[in-house]
Amino acid sequence: MNRLAIIGGGSVGLLYAARLASYHEVTVYTKSKEQAIAINEKGIQIEENEQITVIRVKAAVISDGIAPCDLVVIAVKQYHLSSILPFLRKISPTTPLLFLQNGMSHLEIIDSLPHTYVFLGLVEHGALKKGDVDVTHTGIGTTRLCMYKEYHPIHKELLTNSTDSFPFVEEHDWHYTMIKKLIVNAVINPLTALYRVENGMLPSVAPFRQNMEQLFAEVVLSLGINEGKEYWASILMVCEQTAFNRSSMLRDIESERQTEVDSILGYIISEGEKRHVDVPLATFLYNSIKGLEKKQKK
Amino acid sequence: MNRLAIIGGGSVGLLYAARLASYHEVTVYTKSKEQAIAINEKGIQIEENEQITVIRVKAAVISDGIAPCDLVVIAVKQYHLSSILPFLRKISPTTPLLFLQNGMSHLEIIDSLPHTYVFLGLVEHGALKKGDVDVTHTGIGTTRLCMYKEYHPIHKELLTNSTDSFPFVEEHDWHYTMIKKLIVNAVINPLTALYRVENGMLPSVAPFRQNMEQLFAEVVLSLGINEGKEYWASILMVCEQTAFNRSSMLRDIESERQTEVDSILGYIISEGEKRHVDVPLATFLYNSIKGLEKKQKK
Repeated sequence: MNRLAIIGGGSVGLLYAARLASYHEVTVYTKSKEQAIAINEKGIQIEENEQITVIRVKAAVISDGIAPCDLVVIAVKQYHLSSILPFLRKISPTTPLLFLQNGMSHLEIIDSLPHTYVFLGLVEHGALKKGDVDVTHTGIGTTRLCMYKEYHPIHKELLTNSTDSFPFVEEHDWHYTMIKKLIVNAVINPLTALYRVENGMLPSVAPFRQNMEQLFAEVVLSLGINEGKEYWASILMVCEQTAFNRSSMLRDIESERQTEVDSILGYIISEGEKRHVDVPLATFLYNSIKGLEKKQKK
Repeated sequence: MNRLAIIGGGSVGLLYAARLASYHEVTVYTKSKEQAIAINEKGIQIEENEQITVIRVKAAVISDGIAPCDLVVIAVKQYHLSSILPFLRKISPTTPLLFLQNGMSHLEIIDSLPHTYVFLGLVEHGALKKGDVDVTHTGIGTTRLCMYKEYHPIHKELLTNSTDSFPFVEEHDWHYTMIKKLIVNAVINPLTALYRVENGMLPSVAPFRQNMEQLFAEVVLSLGINEGKEYWASILMVCEQTAFNRSSMLRDIESERQTEVDSILGYIISEGEKRHVDVPLATFLYNSIKGLEKKQKK
Protein backbone atom coordinates (compact mmCIF):
# COMPACT_ATOMS: atom_id res chain seq x y z
CA MET A 1 0.00 0.00 0.00
CA ASN A 2 1.69 3.13 -1.25
CA ARG A 3 0.55 6.71 -1.13
CA LEU A 4 -0.16 7.79 -4.70
CA ALA A 5 -0.71 11.38 -5.84
CA ILE A 6 -2.54 11.63 -9.15
CA ILE A 7 -2.40 15.07 -10.72
CA GLY A 8 -5.31 15.84 -13.01
CA GLY A 9 -9.04 15.23 -12.74
CA GLY A 10 -9.60 14.61 -16.45
CA SER A 11 -10.60 11.28 -18.01
CA VAL A 12 -7.12 9.74 -17.58
CA GLY A 13 -6.64 11.05 -14.04
CA LEU A 14 -10.01 9.74 -12.87
CA LEU A 15 -9.49 6.38 -14.59
CA TYR A 16 -6.07 5.80 -13.02
CA ALA A 17 -7.24 7.05 -9.62
CA ALA A 18 -10.19 4.65 -9.64
CA ARG A 19 -8.19 1.67 -10.90
CA LEU A 20 -5.09 2.15 -8.76
CA ALA A 21 -7.17 2.71 -5.61
CA SER A 22 -7.54 -1.08 -5.34
CA TYR A 23 -3.87 -1.33 -4.37
CA HIS A 24 -2.89 2.09 -3.08
CA GLU A 25 -3.98 5.05 -1.05
CA VAL A 26 -4.85 7.54 -3.77
CA THR A 27 -5.19 11.31 -3.65
CA VAL A 28 -6.39 13.11 -6.78
CA TYR A 29 -5.10 16.66 -7.24
CA THR A 30 -7.49 18.78 -9.27
CA LYS A 31 -7.38 22.29 -10.65
CA SER A 32 -10.83 23.31 -9.40
CA LYS A 33 -11.97 23.32 -5.80
CA GLU A 34 -15.44 22.18 -6.90
CA GLN A 35 -14.09 18.96 -8.39
CA ALA A 36 -11.99 18.17 -5.29
CA ILE A 37 -15.03 18.66 -3.06
CA ALA A 38 -17.20 16.53 -5.35
CA ILE A 39 -14.68 13.66 -5.40
CA ASN A 40 -14.30 13.75 -1.61
CA GLU A 41 -18.06 13.69 -1.18
CA LYS A 42 -19.12 11.26 -3.90
CA GLY A 43 -16.02 9.26 -4.81
CA ILE A 44 -15.23 8.47 -8.44
CA GLN A 45 -18.09 6.84 -10.32
CA ILE A 46 -16.52 4.63 -12.94
CA GLU A 47 -18.66 3.04 -15.62
CA GLU A 48 -17.68 -0.08 -17.52
CA ASN A 49 -19.95 -2.32 -19.56
CA GLU A 50 -22.91 -0.20 -18.44
CA GLN A 51 -22.15 -0.95 -14.80
CA ILE A 52 -21.22 1.88 -12.45
CA THR A 53 -18.87 1.34 -9.49
CA VAL A 54 -18.17 3.99 -6.87
CA ILE A 55 -14.53 4.21 -5.75
CA ARG A 56 -13.63 6.21 -2.69
CA VAL A 57 -10.45 8.28 -3.01
CA LYS A 58 -9.21 11.49 -1.47
CA ALA A 59 -8.96 14.69 -3.44
CA ALA A 60 -7.32 18.07 -2.97
CA VAL A 61 -6.70 21.21 -4.98
CA ILE A 62 -3.26 21.25 -6.59
CA SER A 63 -2.68 24.90 -5.72
CA ASP A 64 -2.61 23.83 -2.04
CA GLY A 65 0.50 21.75 -2.85
CA ILE A 66 1.17 18.03 -3.09
CA ALA A 67 1.57 16.10 0.17
CA PRO A 68 4.58 13.76 0.60
CA CYS A 69 3.89 10.43 -1.10
CA ASP A 70 5.50 7.40 -2.75
CA LEU A 71 4.62 8.13 -6.39
CA VAL A 72 3.25 11.10 -8.31
CA VAL A 73 1.28 10.22 -11.44
CA ILE A 74 1.03 13.20 -13.80
CA ALA A 75 -2.19 12.74 -15.75
CA VAL A 76 -2.74 16.18 -17.29
CA LYS A 77 -2.67 16.88 -21.03
CA GLN A 78 0.69 17.83 -22.47
CA TYR A 79 -0.47 21.42 -23.02
CA HIS A 80 -1.29 21.79 -19.31
CA LEU A 81 2.09 20.53 -18.08
CA SER A 82 3.70 23.95 -17.95
CA SER A 83 0.92 25.26 -15.70
CA ILE A 84 1.59 22.58 -13.05
CA LEU A 85 5.37 22.85 -13.31
CA PRO A 86 5.69 25.07 -10.19
CA PHE A 87 3.97 22.34 -8.13
CA LEU A 88 6.13 19.58 -9.61
CA ARG A 89 9.27 21.55 -8.71
CA LYS A 90 8.24 21.53 -5.04
CA ILE A 91 8.00 17.72 -4.93
CA SER A 92 11.06 16.08 -3.29
CA PRO A 93 13.57 15.09 -6.02
CA THR A 94 13.68 11.55 -4.64
CA THR A 95 9.92 11.02 -5.12
CA PRO A 96 9.35 9.00 -8.28
CA LEU A 97 7.24 10.58 -11.04
CA LEU A 98 5.16 8.82 -13.70
CA PHE A 99 4.19 10.90 -16.75
CA LEU A 100 1.22 9.81 -18.88
CA GLN A 101 1.35 12.36 -21.73
CA ASN A 102 1.07 11.76 -25.45
CA GLY A 103 3.67 12.85 -27.96
CA MET A 104 7.27 13.70 -27.18
CA SER A 105 7.20 17.39 -26.38
CA HIS A 106 6.89 16.82 -22.64
CA LEU A 107 10.31 15.17 -22.46
CA GLU A 108 11.98 18.57 -22.61
CA ILE A 109 9.91 19.72 -19.67
CA ILE A 110 10.74 16.51 -17.75
CA ASP A 111 14.44 17.05 -18.41
CA SER A 112 14.19 20.44 -16.73
CA LEU A 113 13.04 18.82 -13.46
CA PRO A 114 15.52 17.79 -10.73
CA HIS A 115 13.86 14.43 -10.05
CA THR A 116 15.93 11.26 -10.04
CA TYR A 117 13.25 8.65 -10.71
CA VAL A 118 11.07 9.28 -13.73
CA PHE A 119 8.88 6.80 -15.65
CA LEU A 120 6.85 7.31 -18.75
CA GLY A 121 3.53 5.60 -19.26
CA LEU A 122 1.82 5.24 -22.60
CA VAL A 123 -1.90 5.05 -22.10
CA GLU A 124 -3.80 2.85 -24.52
CA HIS A 125 -7.04 2.87 -22.56
CA GLY A 126 -10.18 4.53 -23.78
CA ALA A 127 -11.71 6.82 -21.17
CA LEU A 128 -14.42 9.45 -21.38
CA LYS A 129 -15.08 11.97 -18.64
CA LYS A 130 -18.77 12.68 -18.21
CA GLY A 131 -18.74 14.91 -15.17
CA ASP A 132 -16.58 16.00 -12.24
CA VAL A 133 -16.64 12.51 -10.71
CA ASP A 134 -17.90 10.39 -13.62
CA VAL A 135 -15.66 8.54 -16.02
CA THR A 136 -16.41 5.74 -18.47
CA HIS A 137 -13.76 3.12 -19.22
CA THR A 138 -14.68 2.80 -22.90
CA GLY A 139 -11.86 0.52 -23.93
CA ILE A 140 -9.45 -1.64 -21.97
CA GLY A 141 -5.97 -0.98 -23.26
CA THR A 142 -2.57 -1.18 -21.67
CA THR A 143 -0.24 1.11 -19.78
CA ARG A 144 3.16 0.73 -21.40
CA LEU A 145 5.59 1.52 -18.62
CA CYS A 146 9.08 2.76 -19.47
CA MET A 147 11.95 3.71 -17.21
CA TYR A 148 13.08 7.15 -18.33
CA LYS A 149 15.70 8.05 -15.71
CA GLU A 150 16.86 5.90 -12.76
CA TYR A 151 15.24 2.65 -11.68
CA HIS A 152 13.01 2.73 -8.60
CA PRO A 153 11.33 -0.33 -7.02
CA ILE A 154 7.84 1.18 -7.35
CA HIS A 155 8.22 0.48 -11.07
CA LYS A 156 8.09 -3.24 -10.27
CA GLU A 157 5.14 -2.75 -7.94
CA LEU A 158 3.08 -1.12 -10.68
CA LEU A 159 3.81 -4.08 -12.92
CA THR A 160 2.73 -6.40 -10.10
CA ASN A 161 -0.58 -4.48 -9.92
CA SER A 162 -1.28 -5.47 -13.53
CA THR A 163 -4.71 -7.06 -13.96
CA ASP A 164 -6.70 -8.14 -17.00
CA SER A 165 -8.91 -5.09 -16.79
CA PHE A 166 -6.07 -2.67 -16.08
CA PRO A 167 -2.83 -4.15 -17.38
CA PHE A 168 0.67 -2.72 -17.05
CA VAL A 169 3.33 -3.86 -19.48
CA GLU A 170 7.03 -3.15 -19.21
CA GLU A 171 8.77 -1.59 -22.22
CA HIS A 172 12.54 -1.62 -22.17
CA ASP A 173 13.25 0.94 -24.87
CA TRP A 174 11.35 4.10 -23.98
CA HIS A 175 12.52 5.97 -27.05
CA TYR A 176 11.35 3.32 -29.49
CA THR A 177 8.03 2.91 -27.64
CA MET A 178 7.33 6.64 -27.55
CA ILE A 179 8.37 7.18 -31.17
CA LYS A 180 6.16 4.32 -32.33
CA LYS A 181 3.14 5.80 -30.53
CA LEU A 182 4.03 9.27 -31.83
CA ILE A 183 4.17 8.08 -35.44
CA VAL A 184 0.85 6.25 -35.09
CA ASN A 185 -0.74 9.35 -33.57
CA ALA A 186 0.83 11.72 -36.10
CA VAL A 187 -0.72 9.84 -39.02
CA ILE A 188 -4.07 8.66 -37.64
CA ASN A 189 -5.16 11.57 -35.45
CA PRO A 190 -4.98 14.60 -37.75
CA LEU A 191 -6.37 12.76 -40.79
CA THR A 192 -9.32 11.26 -38.94
CA ALA A 193 -10.02 14.65 -37.33
CA LEU A 194 -9.94 16.40 -40.70
CA TYR A 195 -12.02 13.82 -42.56
CA ARG A 196 -14.23 13.12 -39.54
CA VAL A 197 -13.99 9.41 -40.08
CA GLU A 198 -13.42 6.40 -37.88
CA ASN A 199 -9.88 5.00 -37.79
CA GLY A 200 -10.71 2.08 -40.04
CA MET A 201 -11.72 4.34 -42.93
CA LEU A 202 -8.21 5.71 -43.43
CA PRO A 203 -6.58 2.63 -44.95
CA SER A 204 -9.78 1.34 -46.55
CA VAL A 205 -10.52 4.41 -48.74
CA ALA A 206 -7.79 4.41 -51.40
CA PRO A 207 -7.21 8.20 -51.70
CA PHE A 208 -7.10 8.54 -47.90
CA ARG A 209 -4.55 5.75 -47.80
CA GLN A 210 -2.38 7.58 -50.33
CA ASN A 211 -2.39 10.60 -48.04
CA MET A 212 -1.52 8.39 -45.06
CA GLU A 213 1.48 7.10 -46.98
CA GLN A 214 2.63 10.61 -47.94
CA LEU A 215 2.25 11.88 -44.41
CA PHE A 216 3.99 8.81 -43.00
CA ALA A 217 6.94 9.35 -45.37
CA GLU A 218 7.31 12.92 -44.06
CA VAL A 219 6.96 11.89 -40.44
CA VAL A 220 9.66 9.21 -40.50
CA LEU A 221 12.04 11.45 -42.48
CA SER A 222 11.55 14.30 -40.02
CA LEU A 223 12.42 11.90 -37.18
CA GLY A 224 15.53 10.70 -38.98
CA ILE A 225 14.21 7.16 -39.45
CA ASN A 226 15.41 5.44 -42.60
CA GLU A 227 13.66 2.12 -42.46
CA GLY A 228 10.07 2.65 -41.43
CA LYS A 229 8.34 -0.59 -42.43
CA GLU A 230 7.58 -1.76 -38.90
CA TYR A 231 6.14 1.64 -37.99
CA TRP A 232 3.88 1.58 -41.03
CA ALA A 233 2.74 -1.90 -40.05
CA SER A 234 1.87 -0.69 -36.57
CA ILE A 235 -0.23 2.18 -37.99
CA LEU A 236 -2.22 -0.28 -40.09
CA MET A 237 -2.61 -2.57 -37.11
CA VAL A 238 -4.00 0.21 -34.93
CA CYS A 239 -6.42 1.26 -37.71
CA GLU A 240 -7.61 -2.32 -37.94
CA GLN A 241 -7.87 -3.00 -34.21
CA THR A 242 -9.69 0.29 -33.56
CA ALA A 243 -11.56 0.43 -36.87
CA PHE A 244 -14.77 1.77 -35.35
CA ASN A 245 -13.13 4.18 -32.91
CA ARG A 246 -13.08 7.92 -33.37
CA SER A 247 -9.59 9.19 -32.56
CA SER A 248 -9.03 11.44 -29.56
CA MET A 249 -8.22 14.37 -31.87
CA LEU A 250 -11.46 13.89 -33.80
CA ARG A 251 -13.38 13.77 -30.53
CA ASP A 252 -11.59 16.86 -29.28
CA ILE A 253 -12.54 18.75 -32.45
CA GLU A 254 -16.12 17.51 -32.29
CA SER A 255 -16.40 18.46 -28.62
CA GLU A 256 -14.77 21.84 -29.22
CA ARG A 257 -11.84 21.06 -26.96
CA GLN A 258 -8.18 21.89 -27.49
CA THR A 259 -6.33 19.03 -29.20
CA GLU A 260 -2.88 17.56 -28.61
CA VAL A 261 -1.67 18.61 -32.05
CA ASP A 262 1.23 20.61 -30.59
CA SER A 263 2.76 17.62 -28.87
CA ILE A 264 2.25 15.44 -31.95
CA LEU A 265 2.60 17.36 -35.23
CA GLY A 266 4.26 20.31 -33.51
CA TYR A 267 7.02 17.93 -32.44
CA ILE A 268 7.29 16.41 -35.93
CA ILE A 269 7.63 19.88 -37.47
CA SER A 270 10.36 20.95 -35.05
CA GLU A 271 12.24 17.67 -35.61
CA GLY A 272 11.95 18.26 -39.36
CA GLU A 273 13.45 21.72 -38.92
CA LYS A 274 16.37 20.25 -36.97
CA ARG A 275 17.09 17.85 -39.82
CA HIS A 276 16.29 20.33 -42.61
CA VAL A 277 13.52 18.05 -43.85
CA ASP A 278 10.55 19.67 -45.62
CA VAL A 279 7.26 18.71 -43.97
CA PRO A 280 4.56 20.45 -46.04
CA LEU A 281 1.77 18.02 -45.13
CA ALA A 282 2.56 18.01 -41.42
CA THR A 283 2.59 21.82 -41.51
CA PHE A 284 -0.65 21.94 -43.48
CA LEU A 285 -2.32 19.52 -41.09
CA TYR A 286 -0.99 21.35 -38.05
CA ASN A 287 -2.54 24.58 -39.35
CA SER A 288 -5.74 22.78 -40.29
CA ILE A 289 -6.24 21.40 -36.78
CA LYS A 290 -5.27 24.73 -35.19
CA GLY A 291 -7.79 26.47 -37.44
CA LEU A 292 -10.53 23.97 -36.60
CA GLU A 293 -9.85 24.50 -32.88
CA LYS A 294 -10.20 28.26 -33.36
CA LYS A 295 -13.20 27.96 -35.63
CA GLN A 296 -15.08 25.95 -33.01
CA LYS A 297 -14.59 28.73 -30.48
CA LYS A 298 -16.15 31.39 -32.73
CA MET B 1 -34.95 35.23 -81.76
CA ASN B 2 -32.44 32.43 -82.13
CA ARG B 3 -32.85 28.73 -81.64
CA LEU B 4 -30.79 27.77 -78.60
CA ALA B 5 -29.92 24.23 -77.55
CA ILE B 6 -28.96 23.93 -73.91
CA ILE B 7 -27.34 20.65 -73.02
CA GLY B 8 -27.79 19.62 -69.41
CA GLY B 9 -30.74 19.70 -67.03
CA GLY B 10 -28.73 20.47 -63.91
CA SER B 11 -28.84 23.72 -61.95
CA VAL B 12 -26.84 25.68 -64.53
CA GLY B 13 -28.70 24.24 -67.52
CA LEU B 14 -32.11 25.01 -66.03
CA LEU B 15 -31.03 28.51 -64.96
CA TYR B 16 -29.70 29.43 -68.41
CA ALA B 17 -32.68 27.86 -70.16
CA ALA B 18 -35.14 29.85 -68.04
CA ARG B 19 -33.25 33.13 -68.32
CA LEU B 20 -32.39 32.94 -72.02
CA ALA B 21 -35.94 31.92 -72.94
CA SER B 22 -36.91 35.61 -72.71
CA TYR B 23 -34.95 36.28 -75.88
CA HIS B 24 -34.66 32.96 -77.64
CA GLU B 25 -36.43 29.76 -78.52
CA VAL B 26 -34.84 27.34 -76.07
CA THR B 27 -34.66 23.56 -76.11
CA VAL B 28 -33.15 21.79 -73.11
CA TYR B 29 -31.43 18.49 -73.79
CA THR B 30 -31.51 16.19 -70.79
CA LYS B 31 -30.00 12.81 -70.00
CA SER B 32 -33.20 11.27 -68.64
CA LYS B 33 -36.48 10.89 -70.50
CA GLU B 34 -38.39 11.63 -67.29
CA GLN B 35 -36.85 15.07 -66.97
CA ALA B 36 -37.54 15.96 -70.62
CA ILE B 37 -41.18 14.93 -70.21
CA ALA B 38 -41.47 16.89 -66.97
CA ILE B 39 -40.01 20.07 -68.50
CA ASN B 40 -42.30 19.81 -71.54
CA GLU B 41 -45.31 19.34 -69.28
CA LYS B 42 -44.57 21.77 -66.47
CA GLY B 43 -41.99 24.21 -67.80
CA ILE B 44 -39.06 25.31 -65.66
CA GLN B 45 -40.07 26.66 -62.27
CA ILE B 46 -37.47 29.21 -61.32
CA GLU B 47 -37.42 30.65 -57.81
CA GLU B 48 -35.85 33.99 -56.95
CA ASN B 49 -36.43 36.03 -53.81
CA GLU B 50 -39.03 33.48 -52.72
CA GLN B 51 -41.05 34.08 -55.88
CA ILE B 52 -41.58 31.27 -58.35
CA THR B 53 -41.96 31.94 -62.07
CA VAL B 54 -42.87 29.26 -64.61
CA ILE B 55 -40.98 29.46 -67.90
CA ARG B 56 -42.14 27.41 -70.86
CA VAL B 57 -39.34 25.81 -72.87
CA LYS B 58 -39.03 22.72 -75.00
CA ALA B 59 -37.08 19.69 -73.86
CA ALA B 60 -35.74 16.54 -75.49
CA VAL B 61 -33.50 13.63 -74.59
CA ILE B 62 -29.94 14.14 -75.74
CA SER B 63 -29.60 10.56 -76.96
CA ASP B 64 -32.20 11.41 -79.65
CA GLY B 65 -29.70 13.92 -81.07
CA ILE B 66 -29.54 17.71 -81.19
CA ALA B 67 -31.72 19.51 -83.74
CA PRO B 68 -30.17 22.19 -85.98
CA CYS B 69 -29.94 25.49 -84.10
CA ASP B 70 -28.09 28.80 -83.84
CA LEU B 71 -26.15 28.18 -80.62
CA VAL B 72 -25.43 25.18 -78.44
CA VAL B 73 -24.85 25.96 -74.77
CA ILE B 74 -23.03 23.12 -73.02
CA ALA B 75 -24.10 23.26 -69.38
CA VAL B 76 -23.00 19.87 -68.04
CA LYS B 77 -20.33 19.42 -65.39
CA GLN B 78 -16.80 19.01 -66.65
CA TYR B 79 -16.78 15.34 -65.64
CA HIS B 80 -19.83 14.65 -67.81
CA LEU B 81 -18.39 16.26 -70.95
CA SER B 82 -16.84 13.08 -72.30
CA SER B 83 -20.19 11.29 -72.12
CA ILE B 84 -21.87 13.87 -74.39
CA LEU B 85 -18.92 14.11 -76.78
CA PRO B 86 -20.51 11.79 -79.36
CA PHE B 87 -23.52 14.13 -79.59
CA LEU B 88 -21.32 17.24 -79.86
CA ARG B 89 -19.40 15.64 -82.74
CA LYS B 90 -22.63 15.33 -84.71
CA ILE B 91 -23.39 19.06 -84.47
CA SER B 92 -22.53 20.99 -87.63
CA PRO B 93 -19.00 22.44 -87.31
CA THR B 94 -20.34 25.88 -88.21
CA THR B 95 -22.80 25.95 -85.29
CA PRO B 96 -21.34 28.07 -82.48
CA LEU B 97 -20.78 26.38 -79.11
CA LEU B 98 -20.72 27.99 -75.68
CA PHE B 99 -19.05 25.99 -72.89
CA LEU B 100 -19.90 26.79 -69.27
CA GLN B 101 -17.54 24.45 -67.38
CA ASN B 102 -15.31 25.25 -64.44
CA GLY B 103 -11.58 24.64 -64.42
CA MET B 104 -9.40 24.23 -67.48
CA SER B 105 -9.49 20.51 -68.19
CA HIS B 106 -12.33 20.83 -70.69
CA LEU B 107 -10.20 22.90 -73.07
CA GLU B 108 -8.42 19.77 -74.24
CA ILE B 109 -11.77 18.19 -75.06
CA ILE B 110 -12.90 21.36 -76.86
CA ASP B 111 -9.71 21.34 -78.94
CA SER B 112 -10.57 17.87 -80.16
CA LEU B 113 -13.83 19.14 -81.70
CA PRO B 114 -14.03 20.31 -85.33
CA HIS B 115 -16.16 23.38 -84.50
CA THR B 116 -15.10 26.79 -85.76
CA TYR B 117 -16.94 29.06 -83.34
CA VAL B 118 -16.37 28.33 -79.68
CA PHE B 119 -16.98 30.60 -76.68
CA LEU B 120 -16.27 30.01 -73.05
CA GLY B 121 -18.56 31.28 -70.35
CA LEU B 122 -17.56 31.62 -66.71
CA VAL B 123 -20.63 31.26 -64.53
CA GLU B 124 -20.66 33.34 -61.38
CA HIS B 125 -24.34 32.78 -60.62
CA GLY B 126 -25.54 30.79 -57.67
CA ALA B 127 -28.11 28.17 -58.65
CA LEU B 128 -29.58 25.24 -56.80
CA LYS B 129 -31.56 22.49 -58.46
CA LYS B 130 -34.42 21.27 -56.31
CA GLY B 131 -36.16 18.88 -58.67
CA ASP B 132 -36.43 17.91 -62.33
CA VAL B 133 -37.99 21.27 -63.24
CA ASP B 134 -37.21 23.36 -60.15
CA VAL B 135 -34.22 25.65 -59.83
CA THR B 136 -33.49 28.46 -57.41
CA HIS B 137 -31.43 31.44 -58.53
CA THR B 138 -29.63 31.85 -55.20
CA GLY B 139 -27.23 34.56 -56.22
CA ILE B 140 -27.08 36.89 -59.19
CA GLY B 141 -23.60 36.78 -60.64
CA THR B 142 -22.25 37.33 -64.11
CA THR B 143 -21.54 35.27 -67.18
CA ARG B 144 -18.05 36.18 -68.30
CA LEU B 145 -18.05 35.55 -72.01
CA CYS B 146 -14.79 34.85 -73.82
CA MET B 147 -14.14 34.16 -77.47
CA TYR B 148 -12.09 30.96 -77.58
CA LYS B 149 -11.85 30.27 -81.34
CA GLU B 150 -13.31 32.37 -84.17
CA TYR B 151 -15.66 35.32 -83.69
CA HIS B 152 -19.35 34.76 -84.42
CA PRO B 153 -22.05 37.47 -84.30
CA ILE B 154 -24.12 35.51 -81.73
CA HIS B 155 -21.43 36.49 -79.27
CA LYS B 156 -22.58 40.10 -79.57
CA GLU B 157 -26.23 39.09 -79.30
CA LEU B 158 -25.63 37.36 -75.98
CA LEU B 159 -23.98 40.53 -74.71
CA THR B 160 -27.01 42.50 -75.91
CA ASN B 161 -29.26 40.16 -73.89
CA SER B 162 -27.43 41.25 -70.73
CA THR B 163 -29.83 42.42 -68.00
CA ASP B 164 -29.35 43.39 -64.38
CA SER B 165 -30.68 40.08 -63.18
CA PHE B 166 -28.78 38.01 -65.76
CA PRO B 167 -25.76 39.98 -66.93
CA PHE B 168 -23.27 38.99 -69.61
CA VAL B 169 -19.84 40.62 -69.57
CA GLU B 170 -17.26 40.38 -72.32
CA GLU B 171 -13.75 39.26 -71.37
CA HIS B 172 -11.07 39.78 -73.98
CA ASP B 173 -8.38 37.51 -72.58
CA TRP B 174 -9.93 34.09 -72.10
CA HIS B 175 -6.75 32.56 -70.75
CA TYR B 176 -6.29 35.18 -68.05
CA THR B 177 -10.00 35.04 -67.13
CA MET B 178 -10.06 31.25 -66.88
CA ILE B 179 -6.78 31.06 -65.00
CA LYS B 180 -7.97 33.63 -62.49
CA LYS B 181 -11.17 31.69 -61.84
CA LEU B 182 -9.19 28.45 -61.67
CA ILE B 183 -6.80 29.84 -59.05
CA VAL B 184 -9.68 31.20 -56.96
CA ASN B 185 -11.45 27.84 -57.14
CA ALA B 186 -8.28 25.84 -56.48
CA VAL B 187 -7.66 27.65 -53.21
CA ILE B 188 -11.17 28.30 -51.87
CA ASN B 189 -13.05 25.17 -52.87
CA PRO B 190 -10.97 22.31 -51.47
CA LEU B 191 -10.16 24.11 -48.22
CA THR B 192 -13.75 25.12 -47.49
CA ALA B 193 -14.89 21.58 -48.37
CA LEU B 194 -12.32 20.04 -46.05
CA TYR B 195 -12.90 22.42 -43.13
CA ARG B 196 -16.64 22.64 -43.80
CA VAL B 197 -16.59 26.39 -43.37
CA GLU B 198 -18.06 29.33 -45.24
CA ASN B 199 -15.75 31.18 -47.63
CA GLY B 200 -15.20 34.09 -45.26
CA MET B 201 -13.67 31.85 -42.58
CA LEU B 202 -10.62 30.98 -44.66
CA PRO B 203 -8.81 34.32 -44.50
CA SER B 204 -10.21 35.27 -41.09
CA VAL B 205 -8.85 32.25 -39.15
CA ALA B 206 -5.07 32.74 -39.04
CA PRO B 207 -3.95 29.09 -39.42
CA PHE B 208 -6.41 28.56 -42.29
CA ARG B 209 -5.00 31.66 -43.95
CA GLN B 210 -1.48 30.26 -43.67
CA ASN B 211 -2.65 27.16 -45.50
CA MET B 212 -4.34 29.31 -48.15
CA GLU B 213 -1.02 31.06 -48.72
CA GLN B 214 0.91 27.81 -48.98
CA LEU B 215 -1.59 26.30 -51.38
CA PHE B 216 -1.70 29.51 -53.44
CA ALA B 217 2.10 29.48 -53.74
CA GLU B 218 1.96 25.92 -55.11
CA VAL B 219 -0.88 26.70 -57.49
CA VAL B 220 0.76 29.72 -59.15
CA LEU B 221 4.10 27.91 -59.42
CA SER B 222 2.46 24.89 -61.04
CA LEU B 223 0.86 27.23 -63.59
CA GLY B 224 4.18 28.93 -64.33
CA ILE B 225 3.06 32.27 -62.89
CA ASN B 226 5.84 34.29 -61.31
CA GLU B 227 4.05 37.35 -60.04
CA GLY B 228 0.84 36.29 -58.36
CA LYS B 229 -0.18 39.34 -56.31
CA GLU B 230 -3.27 40.21 -58.33
CA TYR B 231 -4.48 36.60 -58.19
CA TRP B 232 -4.06 36.54 -54.43
CA ALA B 233 -6.01 39.77 -54.19
CA SER B 234 -8.85 38.28 -56.21
CA ILE B 235 -9.01 35.24 -53.89
CA LEU B 236 -9.33 37.52 -50.87
CA MET B 237 -11.95 39.60 -52.67
CA VAL B 238 -14.07 36.53 -53.47
CA CYS B 239 -13.80 35.33 -49.84
CA GLU B 240 -14.96 38.72 -48.67
CA GLN B 241 -17.78 39.15 -51.20
CA THR B 242 -19.09 35.63 -50.62
CA ALA B 243 -18.19 35.44 -46.93
CA PHE B 244 -21.36 33.60 -45.92
CA ASN B 245 -21.52 31.29 -48.94
CA ARG B 246 -20.69 27.63 -48.83
CA SER B 247 -18.54 26.79 -51.86
CA SER B 248 -19.87 24.48 -54.55
CA MET B 249 -17.34 21.81 -53.57
CA LEU B 250 -18.44 21.96 -49.94
CA ARG B 251 -22.06 21.65 -51.01
CA ASP B 252 -21.20 18.76 -53.30
CA ILE B 253 -19.49 16.94 -50.42
CA GLU B 254 -22.35 17.68 -48.04
CA SER B 255 -24.91 16.52 -50.60
CA GLU B 256 -22.90 13.41 -51.42
CA ARG B 257 -22.40 14.45 -55.04
CA GLN B 258 -19.29 14.12 -57.16
CA THR B 259 -17.16 17.30 -57.03
CA GLU B 260 -15.27 19.16 -59.74
CA VAL B 261 -11.93 18.46 -58.09
CA ASP B 262 -10.57 16.78 -61.24
CA SER B 263 -11.01 19.86 -63.40
CA ILE B 264 -9.59 22.12 -60.68
CA LEU B 265 -6.86 20.43 -58.60
CA GLY B 266 -6.43 17.64 -61.14
CA TYR B 267 -5.48 20.30 -63.68
CA ILE B 268 -3.10 22.02 -61.23
CA ILE B 269 -1.37 18.72 -60.52
CA SER B 270 -0.89 17.90 -64.20
CA GLU B 271 0.41 21.41 -64.90
CA GLY B 272 2.81 20.99 -61.98
CA GLU B 273 4.05 17.75 -63.48
CA LYS B 274 4.65 19.45 -66.83
CA ARG B 275 6.79 22.09 -65.14
CA HIS B 276 8.43 19.67 -62.66
CA VAL B 277 6.97 21.63 -59.76
CA ASP B 278 6.24 19.76 -56.52
CA VAL B 279 2.62 20.16 -55.46
CA PRO B 280 2.31 18.20 -52.20
CA LEU B 281 -0.64 20.19 -50.84
CA ALA B 282 -2.60 20.12 -54.09
CA THR B 283 -2.01 16.36 -54.23
CA PHE B 284 -2.99 15.91 -50.59
CA LEU B 285 -6.15 17.97 -51.09
CA TYR B 286 -7.01 16.17 -54.32
CA ASN B 287 -6.83 12.84 -52.48
CA SER B 288 -8.74 14.26 -49.52
CA ILE B 289 -11.66 15.37 -51.67
CA LYS B 290 -11.60 12.12 -53.66
CA GLY B 291 -11.67 10.19 -50.40
CA LEU B 292 -14.54 12.26 -49.02
CA GLU B 293 -16.50 11.62 -52.24
CA LYS B 294 -15.93 7.88 -51.85
CA LYS B 295 -16.63 7.91 -48.13
CA GLN B 296 -20.03 9.51 -48.68
CA LYS B 297 -21.01 6.70 -51.01
CA LYS B 298 -20.31 3.98 -48.45
